[in-house]
Amino acid sequence: MRIVLDGMGSDNHPDPEVSAAIEAYRKWGDQVLLTGPEHMLRPRLKALGARRDEVRVVHAPQVLEMTDKPAKAARNKPDSSMAIGMQLLKDGEADAFVTAGNTGGALAYALFRLGRIRGVKRPALSAVFPVQDGKAVVLDIGANADCRPDYLLQFAHMGSAYAESVLGLSRPRVGLLSNGEEAGKGNDLVKETYPLVQASNLNFMGNVEPKEIFAGSADVVVCDGFTGNIFLKTSEAVAGFLVSLIREHIRAGLITSLGGLLAKPAFRAVGRLLDPAEYGAAPLLGVNGLVFIGHGRSDTRALVNAIGVARQSAESGLLEAVRSAIQQRLAASPPEADV
Amino acid sequence: MRIVLDGMGSDNHPDPEVSAAIEAYRKWGDQVLLTGPEHMLRPRLKALGARRDEVRVVHAPQVLEMTDKPAKAARNKPDSSMAIGMQLLKDGEADAFVTAGNTGGALAYALFRLGRIRGVKRPALSAVFPVQDGKAVVLDIGANADCRPDYLLQFAHMGSAYAESVLGLSRPRVGLLSNGEEAGKGNDLVKETYPLVQASNLNFMGNVEPKEIFAGSADVVVCDGFTGNIFLKTSEAVAGFLVSLIREHIRAGLITSLGGLLAKPAFRAVGRLLDPAEYGAAPLLGVNGLVFIGHGRSDTRALVNAIGVARQSAESGLLEAVRSAIQQRLAASPPEADV
Repeated sequence: MRIVLDGMGSDNHPDPEVSAAIEAYRKWGDQVLLTGPEHMLRPRLKALGARRDEVRVVHAPQVLEMTDKPAKAARNKPDSSMAIGMQLLKDGEADAFVTAGNTGGALAYALFRLGRIRGVKRPALSAVFPVQDGKAVVLDIGANADCRPDYLLQFAHMGSAYAESVLGLSRPRVGLLSNGEEAGKGNDLVKETYPLVQASNLNFMGNVEPKEIFAGSADVVVCDGFTGNIFLKTSEAVAGFLVSLIREHIRAGLITSLGGLLAKPAFRAVGRLLDPAEYGAAPLLGVNGLVFIGHGRSDTRALVNAIGVARQSAESGLLEAVRSAIQQRLAASPPEADV
Repeated sequence: MRIVLDGMGSDNHPDPEVSAAIEAYRKWGDQVLLTGPEHMLRPRLKALGARRDEVRVVHAPQVLEMTDKPAKAARNKPDSSMAIGMQLLKDGEADAFVTAGNTGGALAYALFRLGRIRGVKRPALSAVFPVQDGKAVVLDIGANADCRPDYLLQFAHMGSAYAESVLGLSRPRVGLLSNGEEAGKGNDLVKETYPLVQASNLNFMGNVEPKEIFAGSADVVVCDGFTGNIFLKTSEAVAGFLVSLIREHIRAGLITSLGGLLAKPAFRAVGRLLDPAEYGAAPLLGVNGLVFIGHGRSDTRALVNAIGVARQSAESGLLEAVRSAIQQRLAASPPEADV
């Protein structure tokens, strides 16, 4: 398995990336390709005692900043660590690409360098949520702020392909994120998407509300990228707010402080469940290559986990699964304008 | 102050309503008007020892069920406890109306019986969120699944009027719920709304993400009713999921179980902060009357708090504040088609 890691993606680049590349080799025995300025990467690798066969540096003189405008950067920074990484993927020198950099930038480079899978209207970014007794794939979580019903139908197919090949589920249950469970609830987009998914060969269970998602009643949750992003960020914000509130209240009194100390293992377990690092990175589905985008705040552990998810996806044939889901869909439905 | 309470609104009606009406009288000394079937309300009031001057029953033979289709019910059940309650408000026999019933039904009756304030395009349902060191008004949380930029501008004005008159804030900070803080982030609706709010006389602080909302950086958060509903329900779902996770982990081990016991006051404080009962009910802004809609699961305490919020809103002149905000806005802007 050959994974390429953007050496300059995370907020604290390149230290977490350098450590993660070494750790990934020691964990799985695969040489990691690390992109970025040689003069920054090599001394750090040397300092950590990495051998040449463990991590291969691929020089990329430019760095995409979080403040860079995605579309502009994709044109103006052809030699960024992200661009070079995608190119390695395109040239078949790697099986998957992982970055903790600018999401919009990664999306722009992916469209530009790798292109869409034939028949895919819009690629979608997915997140894997921890839910009661399992996981749920939510997409789109931010690649497309405005969507059409036919995009959402494709997200449903791509999300199912992910749940089948990477999570190992058979006939994953697909739900539409909505403001009410009953058919007929939702905004115009949801209402128009509903019959399309219902008429498909997917295991459609109708609309789902946030509560049902966390209760584990859907494996794949489909929404537009704006709503999905709000859903993701609200979940993170509420979890963070709650943990800080509990801490504050524990600090307020002696008894509760002792209680807090004794309850610490419980808090830690909850914290782990909510930690994006546990899940590594979000796959960008629908482009011609396996691209995984991690949180800017990713540390070494998060990046190693992201590499793990990327390896697993490559091994399970995710790209082929998405291709075949889209092809089957195209074959099953009347030809339509591809915009 | 004269408050009318829908006697048949909550899931467990009419017991919580009957108790709440009595408790509200004993708390504030105001006679509460309670609507619903006399044969159900009177025996319960008698059993609880309520005097006639404490609670006045206004007979309403019909009950709106949670399963009733709102628009249909508004036509077919003209004598429901909700309809009669709204009518009392319209006829000037009450200052505010409180219900824990079907939200869509309340919206339909309000539009039908009370009508919109002149110039208001769409009424909005608001929720008051507990945030770091304060509260934030979020609207719309479900009255309008699909919105236009001019609706959102009006929500911003109505939300500011609420924050000023009920929460007592001067120049409340208004934010647009978005998937990124920078201007230019958002879906088409947010992008088109941004310049409208910016050009208004409101204290606009730009886009806000969920994290900033919980950090308390906006007093009024504006969004379409679909997104607002997802935001509200995701917050509730994550809080519920977390609390259940913590409980589960505490039950798992002896030490942590003792810890959990000792940390109980902290959990209770957090639970209170997240309990919708603490905030009572969501005001429906933009209709010709003060209408407050509580959660179907409201108990007596939640209903008493809802009556408290309704009283406070009537006392502070909320209806006039909303009217005047909309009138000022109409005077300040060129005439436009009112659809």
